[in-house]
Amino acid sequence: MATFDIEISEVGPRDGLQSITSIMTTERKRAWIDALAAAGIPEIEVGSFVPAKILPQLADTAELVSYATKIEHLSVTVLVPNLRGAQNAMQVSPTRMSIPFSVSETHSMRNVKRNHIQMLQEVKNIAILIKSFPKELRPKFEGGLATAFGCGIEGNISEDKVVSLAVSLMEAGCDGVGLSDTTGSGNPLQVKRLIKKVWQAVGKENLTGIHLHNTRGQGLANVLAAIETGITTIDSSMGGLGGCPAATGASGNIVTEDLVFMLEAMGLKTGVNLERLFVAREILANALPNETLYGFTPNSGLPKGFAYASQRD
Amino acid sequence: MATFDIEISEVGPRDGLQSITSIMTTERKRAWIDALAAAGIPEIEVGSFVPAKILPQLADTAELVSYATKIEHLSVTVLVPNLRGAQNAMQVSPTRMSIPFSVSETHSMRNVKRNHIQMLQEVKNIAILIKSFPKELRPKFEGGLATAFGCGIEGNISEDKVVSLAVSLMEAGCDGVGLSDTTGSGNPLQVKRLIKKVWQAVGKENLTGIHLHNTRGQGLANVLAAIETGITTIDSSMGGLGGCPAATGASGNIVTEDLVFMLEAMGLKTGVNLERLFVAREILANALPNETLYGFTPNSGLPKGFAYASQRD
Repeated sequence: MATFDIEISEVGPRDGLQSITSIMTTERKRAWIDALAAAGIPEIEVGSFVPAKILPQLADTAELVSYATKIEHLSVTVLVPNLRGAQNAMQVSPTRMSIPFSVSETHSMRNVKRNHIQMLQEVKNIAILIKSFPKELRPKFEGGLATAFGCGIEGNISEDKVVSLAVSLMEAGCDGVGLSDTTGSGNPLQVKRLIKKVWQAVGKENLTGIHLHNTRGQGLANVLAAIETGITTIDSSMGGLGGCPAATGASGNIVTEDLVFMLEAMGLKTGVNLERLFVAREILANALPNETLYGFTPNSGLPKGFAYASQRD
Repeated sequence: MATFDIEISEVGPRDGLQSITSIMTTERKRAWIDALAAAGIPEIEVGSFVPAKILPQLADTAELVSYATKIEHLSVTVLVPNLRGAQNAMQVSPTRMSIPFSVSETHSMRNVKRNHIQMLQEVKNIAILIKSFPKELRPKFEGGLATAFGCGIEGNISEDKVVSLAVSLMEAGCDGVGLSDTTGSGNPLQVKRLIKKVWQAVGKENLTGIHLHNTRGQGLANVLAAIETGITTIDSSMGGLGGCPAATGASGNIVTEDLVFMLEAMGLKTGVNLERLFVAREILANALPNETLYGFTPNSGLPKGFAYASQRD
């Protein structure tokens, strides 16, 4: 496997495709996933185990997990909203499984119709389900703390609440927690502060990733803050596709293409080849002709004299 | 005057308007400048003293300097490409005057048809001109080191060359130097490193600003790196309008609106009110209906519960 300093987790096939009305065919999704993996992306969130009547765009998630887990060196992650989703996911053995857990209880009620107590029970049940499988079939199970940096309904979110729910998620059986800026209202200082607080509470190794939105253009600055603090796994989406449709004013993920450029230019190995990533973007653009793809690096190209981090060793 | 932690220098009326073919009327420019100042922007680069046949968009620069210098608490800056431009500028007493100086000699030849020796002579002559005026009429004179982070023609730029030219500019009579990422190829680590090197050579007080482009989406991450290092004056452009048309692949300034959001959210006072800044953006958008304005915060709005830095004291 490629060694990297920062692991990019591409969430486009899940977070991106769930946010748009166009449905990408399974065949095109496979081609896109192939191209992303060929570009060196180490992890892809291929879908979400939600009822097809709610998100028909992701109805082929099980099929995609089966397909993607056959790709060498690729970590395949899925989102599950509840126990039922986790049961379905366990049939196809993803590498990682995450459940979104809104720190804002109001957002949780609106998004999944469950309060914190009900959500924690769901997390416990999923953890028990996973432990009922043999070790080699158990995915890494992550609790993703949504609205951790602010909520479109509740407004500011108490950092103590984020920390205490991170602890609750670990106690409920998660293998790690993630922090999500669902509304894209986070700022670099907040990112640094919250990471350190969560580290103190659950241990550095148990904060397994960060999911930042670009709703107010702060995406890469917030990533910089996160990696300066010491986070090594970053979610991003090709073309910035996605964002959480249930949160007011939320739109736009961090653009994978610009993120890879930043990291490699800084000398941080991602294992990703940008020219091949642009090929994957072409596949996506052709599959979704009516969607706006964000990002600047694909249009401006690489600077003259650009060297990948690995070429500078 | 408003106190601020970070001073935003709005370059839209110069860098933005010089890059587009539409010509904004003087009346609309005045209204825009008024709105920017009313929003609390402390410094505006209102134009460039270049021949009107080269940049007809900026033919009214002298008139705008006279107009803007009457606005209370506003620092009015202009660009001058050469001694002739400086002579014209001195007739209207701007607060600050800057001359772009390309670290890439190839870019310098292509952009202003002068090599480094010729440019340094020009800088010396301008410094002598300024000193011939009584003290209270002397603008602060800055040498702006263009292509400091990379050149579209030469590729990578030696940091030692940037440093030695910074020293030469100070010796030639500049009151300070600035660093410009003309091609938008800089990365956060490079920004931090180069600032520190220039500080070591010319003193912290003589690196008076940084001009970063968003060509590859790195703008705000690079700003974060700059302010974390200790830079307190940042150039940006409303709607991201502008970029250097002479450099290959260059387009897109840092978006003032998203920058102000970042800084204020981080608790850094800018003196700028975002709602009023959005009003200024409306004036710009109405004046330039055919131009794309970038930036996310104007569309997403401020997060619920947002507080300005000054409200948190």
